[in-house]
Amino acid sequence: MASDGLNRLSACEIAHGIAAGKFTAEAVLRDCLARIAAREPLLKAWAAYDFDLALSQARICDRTTAKGPLHGVPLGVKDVIDTADLPTQMGSPIYDGHRPARDASCVARLRAAGAIILGKTVTCEFAGATPGATVHPHNATHTPGGSSSGSAAAVADAMVPAALGTQTRGSILRPASYCGIIGYKPSYALVPRDGLKLAAESFDTIGVLARSIDDADLIVAVLTGRDVMTRTLDSPPVIGLCREGMDHAQIETVQAIEDAARRLEAQGAKIRPFDFPGNFEELTAATKTINDVERARAMAWEWNTKPDLISERLRKTIAHGLAVTPSSYADALRLVETSRNALPIAFGAIGVVLAPCANGEAPSGLDYTGDPFFQGAWTALHAPAISLPTHRGPTGLPVGIQLVGRRHADEALLAAARWIFSRLGSG
Amino acid sequence: MASDGLNRLSACEIAHGIAAGKFTAEAVLRDCLARIAAREPLLKAWAAYDFDLALSQARICDRTTAKGPLHGVPLGVKDVIDTADLPTQMGSPIYDGHRPARDASCVARLRAAGAIILGKTVTCEFAGATPGATVHPHNATHTPGGSSSGSAAAVADAMVPAALGTQTRGSILRPASYCGIIGYKPSYALVPRDGLKLAAESFDTIGVLARSIDDADLIVAVLTGRDVMTRTLDSPPVIGLCREGMDHAQIETVQAIEDAARRLEAQGAKIRPFDFPGNFEELTAATKTINDVERARAMAWEWNTKPDLISERLRKTIAHGLAVTPSSYADALRLVETSRNALPIAFGAIGVVLAPCANGEAPSGLDYTGDPFFQGAWTALHAPAISLPTHRGPTGLPVGIQLVGRRHADEALLAAARWIFSRLGSG
Repeated sequence: MASDGLNRLSACEIAHGIAAGKFTAEAVLRDCLARIAAREPLLKAWAAYDFDLALSQARICDRTTAKGPLHGVPLGVKDVIDTADLPTQMGSPIYDGHRPARDASCVARLRAAGAIILGKTVTCEFAGATPGATVHPHNATHTPGGSSSGSAAAVADAMVPAALGTQTRGSILRPASYCGIIGYKPSYALVPRDGLKLAAESFDTIGVLARSIDDADLIVAVLTGRDVMTRTLDSPPVIGLCREGMDHAQIETVQAIEDAARRLEAQGAKIRPFDFPGNFEELTAATKTINDVERARAMAWEWNTKPDLISERLRKTIAHGLAVTPSSYADALRLVETSRNALPIAFGAIGVVLAPCANGEAPSGLDYTGDPFFQGAWTALHAPAISLPTHRGPTGLPVGIQLVGRRHADEALLAAARWIFSRLGSG
Repeated sequence: MASDGLNRLSACEIAHGIAAGKFTAEAVLRDCLARIAAREPLLKAWAAYDFDLALSQARICDRTTAKGPLHGVPLGVKDVIDTADLPTQMGSPIYDGHRPARDASCVARLRAAGAIILGKTVTCEFAGATPGATVHPHNATHTPGGSSSGSAAAVADAMVPAALGTQTRGSILRPASYCGIIGYKPSYALVPRDGLKLAAESFDTIGVLARSIDDADLIVAVLTGRDVMTRTLDSPPVIGLCREGMDHAQIETVQAIEDAARRLEAQGAKIRPFDFPGNFEELTAATKTINDVERARAMAWEWNTKPDLISERLRKTIAHGLAVTPSSYADALRLVETSRNALPIAFGAIGVVLAPCANGEAPSGLDYTGDPFFQGAWTALHAPAISLPTHRGPTGLPVGIQLVGRRHADEALLAAARWIFSRLGSG
């Protein structure tokens, strides 16, 4: 059966189309399921789904008046986030078949807005660095990035319009950049974390992978209870160009940033150098220290009772975390807090920061999901960040740019991102 | 059978006694169980326990070499913290009989140190304000305080030497003050929260209710992986006296603070006025706003699916939280962050702050667990705080004082608390 291609619509288009009676929620879902049936054997983006359950929910949507702005929209949820009607296995054999008693708050809010949770997307083990089975949707010999691997691949491959992800250092923006979609990590703690398996709680942030800025905006509006307001800028933004750590970047990332800055300046944006508040490399190292300590803490039960079911890579991280002294951990927290508190001053008149998103294209091979170097420091600063799929690398795979806003100023970031993306376009 | 009174020993004394062969873990546990059997029908401190399971664990302790510094020590765990071998019911009929798949990280760490989790202690509904069944151990017509009601009552009544509690605004220090024991809320995020049902995640902190400072120190050392080091001060501390909000205090609290300051000064401490960083009443109001917004978010699943099983009091809090605009919430977060960032400057040369702990004695009646007014602002500032049972009120019930330290300086706070408590003594 030929698909109608409703799976290629955005979440906003799906919601509007259903509301306008152009198509049904069931028709949308069937196109998504057809896409999954065709592509999942290769992509392995899903840890669990229940087609019958999703279809019954879509049919209920079609019989009822709209509950909210996501009425009938199928979404994916990263498999470290609890769902009452689907397993939550966290990419770990320790949680094989695990079924939580309740939905995470973020899932409950999506459902209350009418969304259909189509399934759980593959995560690296406990949202860490040990990959799941997912491959890159454009080239199956490359990593899709991690740890929100399945969410990125499923969205990029038009299996669902959007999916929830989580970012502790770079787990939303990096796979989004690799897979050529939008990754939006809101300000820290903007989205409630109840029902999320914590990785490193000083940083863990729930966000969205999507194919449009409007979708990412809409979903986070639902998650936070704010109004859905599509804002853009009245005048060109002042963009702070952050070249920190550029020696870590491959040529395609350097070119993407320089090209973006040049073209945006040509369109009226003011480009200013961004003075990072603190030493970027030191901050990145402190972020790793905090990450490892907190991961080790959050894994206490698994580590104590089922160490043989933890991957060697994660066991090393935990062992490192357990070896960090409490005073080193406190020093790392203080260093990060100092930079975090200095961030508003560093912004000054700057509206949005333009920075590298990932080192380069998705690396080849499936054993390594890439380096969080360019995302980790910003995550630690609790700033909202979004990746835009504006460029391509030497093998034709996507290369994103990263935009960073002020904490608590997510709507301003999204407005700037719209202005910028409409001028740069997709790569 | 007459009890040997081993239930009255501190956790440190129990661990040392078992290690020295003076008594067995089973003997200690049997004294605790005898106390529970005698007193639980009146006190109602426990939401769940399994005597046989605890006894089998104690016998295993007695057959094995010590795993860690809590070998054989029976402890209670507040019933919003996950345990794999006991129900976790959160003071709510929604979670009747709920059994988590795993231990919370904090519980896993206690077990790894040899502790025996004797049972789950009664909590207010979801660590909020709607009381459980527990009564005050010294006068059953009075509240024990909340929300760590069962932990406070069980420890004060010598059913266990110590228990875990949680504080979002005042849920450790207030019941500790009411029940005449030590309540220790560590610096925010010092103790891992994985496996804790979140209430308001910007503030939620896991801590300890105990009968000695050394026990609170030891247990938090285990929870955080730091060394156990009993520190005291070499010279008298500089104490900042905080009289903020004193018009909220009953006469016994005013007298406790003034008496403590006078006697400590007479023993060589330097007493300085403490300049609170910000407006205490405004900060308290912002704390309530954040509390309500985040509670509403964390309760999304329960609110959407089982509203009839939520108490009217909590439904009001949630409704209020849902009505707060995102910009008001962000404003409240900013206000709190500004004060939090200014706290180190406000401390200056001050080593520890002395402040009211609760409005006064435990109120009579069981429907109201007391006012978090004097604890909430400090919790919001992420500072470590400890209550000491140094005074008595007009009806003879305990009245505590509160000591507050700098964030990340928990060991300095504990050292100052030892110096102060050894000079003031129990009330």
